[in-house]
Amino acid sequence: RYSSQNRLVTMIPGDGIGPEISVAVKQIFSAAGVPIDWEDVDVTPVKGPDGLFRLPPKIFESMARTKVGLKGPLATPIGKGHQSLNLALRKAFSLYANVRPCKSIEGYETPYKNVDIVTIRENTEGEYSGIEHVIVDGVVQSIKLITENASMRVAEYAFKYARDNRRSTVTAVHKANIMRMSDGLFLKCCREVAAKNKDIKFSEMYLDTVCLNLVQDPGSFDVLVMPNLYGDILSDLCAGLIGGLGVTPSGNIGEEGALFESVHGTAPDIAGENKANPTALLLSAVMMLRYMELTSYADRIEDAAFSVIREGQHLTGDLGGNSTCSAFTDEICRKVQAS
Amino acid sequence: RYSSQNRLVTMIPGDGIGPEISVAVKQIFSAAGVPIDWEDVDVTPVKGPDGLFRLPPKIFESMARTKVGLKGPLATPIGKGHQSLNLALRKAFSLYANVRPCKSIEGYETPYKNVDIVTIRENTEGEYSGIEHVIVDGVVQSIKLITENASMRVAEYAFKYARDNRRSTVTAVHKANIMRMSDGLFLKCCREVAAKNKDIKFSEMYLDTVCLNLVQDPGSFDVLVMPNLYGDILSDLCAGLIGGLGVTPSGNIGEEGALFESVHGTAPDIAGENKANPTALLLSAVMMLRYMELTSYADRIEDAAFSVIREGQHLTGDLGGNSTCSAFTDEICRKVQAS
Ligand SMILES: CC(C)[C@H](C(=O)O)[C@@H](O)C(=O)O
Ligand SMILES: CC(C)[C@H](C(=O)O)[C@@H](O)C(=O)O
Repeated sequence: RYSSQNRLVTMIPGDGIGPEISVAVKQIFSAAGVPIDWEDVDVTPVKGPDGLFRLPPKIFESMARTKVGLKGPLATPIGKGHQSLNLALRKAFSLYANVRPCKSIEGYETPYKNVDIVTIRENTEGEYSGIEHVIVDGVVQSIKLITENASMRVAEYAFKYARDNRRSTVTAVHKANIMRMSDGLFLKCCREVAAKNKDIKFSEMYLDTVCLNLVQDPGSFDVLVMPNLYGDILSDLCAGLIGGLGVTPSGNIGEEGALFESVHGTAPDIAGENKANPTALLLSAVMMLRYMELTSYADRIEDAAFSVIREGQHLTGDLGGNSTCSAFTDEICRKVQAS
Repeated sequence: RYSSQNRLVTMIPGDGIGPEISVAVKQIFSAAGVPIDWEDVDVTPVKGPDGLFRLPPKIFESMARTKVGLKGPLATPIGKGHQSLNLALRKAFSLYANVRPCKSIEGYETPYKNVDIVTIRENTEGEYSGIEHVIVDGVVQSIKLITENASMRVAEYAFKYARDNRRSTVTAVHKANIMRMSDGLFLKCCREVAAKNKDIKFSEMYLDTVCLNLVQDPGSFDVLVMPNLYGDILSDLCAGLIGGLGVTPSGNIGEEGALFESVHGTAPDIAGENKANPTALLLSAVMMLRYMELTSYADRIEDAAFSVIREGQHLTGDLGGNSTCSAFTDEICRKVQAS
């Protein structure tokens, strides 16, 4: 289990623009004097004696010691037998809750105002069970697996998150009108947990209705909790409302530890050109600092990043500017040091 | 099979505001002199000798004769053993493709411009198979069923729709990175059909990416084809982009015939008060006229409805006005007659 005495963090820089944005985060952390050490780990899969590829032992050793990781984007090797590395990591460390806060960023305008939504996604089962069969030629089934254990655990996390972060309402997102047993079980667990957490309001909404209302009135949502696939969808939708995956942080929370990651792609077209935007990885690192109870560092770094974006003078291309990754990073470092 | 000689239409007025908006549609059709007759049918389930409720025989008799239906909103009775009536109808008549065109409406502004998207949803299987089991206490599985037949059929429909409606691109929406076998089969079918329809462009996109891009750049989408649940979600999302279910038409297409329906709720709070907005049912009826090859009537009625909305003088409450359902309807009748 993670203890806030731990001051070592596993860093998985990742592929494409991953190394650049990882360096940016490290620079900003140094400028802020964050009292942690980084342990860089490469997670390129290694071929086992059975011919199958797996995560290298180093990542398990490192995470076993640190319990906390920060991860840039990973390219999933193409070809048979390669599962997404992102998913492999979530599974390997039982990271049961995926948390993505989506809050409108001042200075980075979208057609939506006042978005402040947190999606909390069950991260281990559901439509991601990986259990599939061919029944007969041309007939395939995929199994959506919902368990009481995993549903209770993520529902409990959602209410705890809401309380710790002074949020008022948790909404369970489901299609229990269609998947009565599976989504029905998920919903039952949410209701049970809600009944034990009366200080937080609870509501329920169909997934399709959530989608409709999110584009019409995103300001009406607070914390959303849901099965795996629904979270995949809604977290991207919500990210879209605030400007995309380049500015949206993400955390994968487990019983033992946690892994924070930027969920955008590796952007191979601009890799190595000093054009990448480190915001998503930086805000994920800020979530990590809060997890590590290094709250004042988190606040200072977050304030600095948001004020650089608000001022709009040193932005990367995707944020609407024409500065380099390092110019944007340097400006955040200056603000952090001045604070 | 439907033949355009048929001039009889089954009308299921539905519950709540259903009767009022059905009357509105009939009035507008009369004003336009549409050469069809209506056969009203009530679909309140009847209890069989086994104690289970089912659709009344009348609806089967009527649809067997007419092959074409128009349907208002239905309330699903609450309690065990009641499947959604909407779904029961889709199943009973093998309505394999659900089509929802979402086009920005001039005069009814939303934060999105130039939306013109058609979602085409597989309507018979997938996550809606209804096959679910308890494995052991606290462990439930729901089966997503994908067949080559149903996937080919809906993919073929999507390309035919695109051609008939002069659209340029069909995009298959999937999560074949996760559900490799089931969504993989769906995608394979789309690719096969695309290869035989080279006059229409084809693309593929992950469901989560579609959600993100829909809120950031809805103008970049054209015709979307996808498995059942994804269609449920995206059709609501797209409806939200143009103003909601109150202005979005829907058609369920089968081999033998078709059922057009408004997909909003029954709005029991305003039922009987002459406040309902008949637009979604009217635009669904316009889709029906095109299906029946009564194109010139379809065009005249659609033009009249859109010009009343654009002029903004006789709108119902949900459209931002304070007119009654009948005043709005009368104004459309006047326009239709003048055209
Ligand atoms: C990369 C992909 C497997 C992943 C998912 O489907 O969960 C991604 O979309 C995400 O949201 O992290
Ligand atoms: C009413 C409900 C069962 C239905 C569905 O889930 O398909 C509705 O949401 C729709 O889109 O028509």
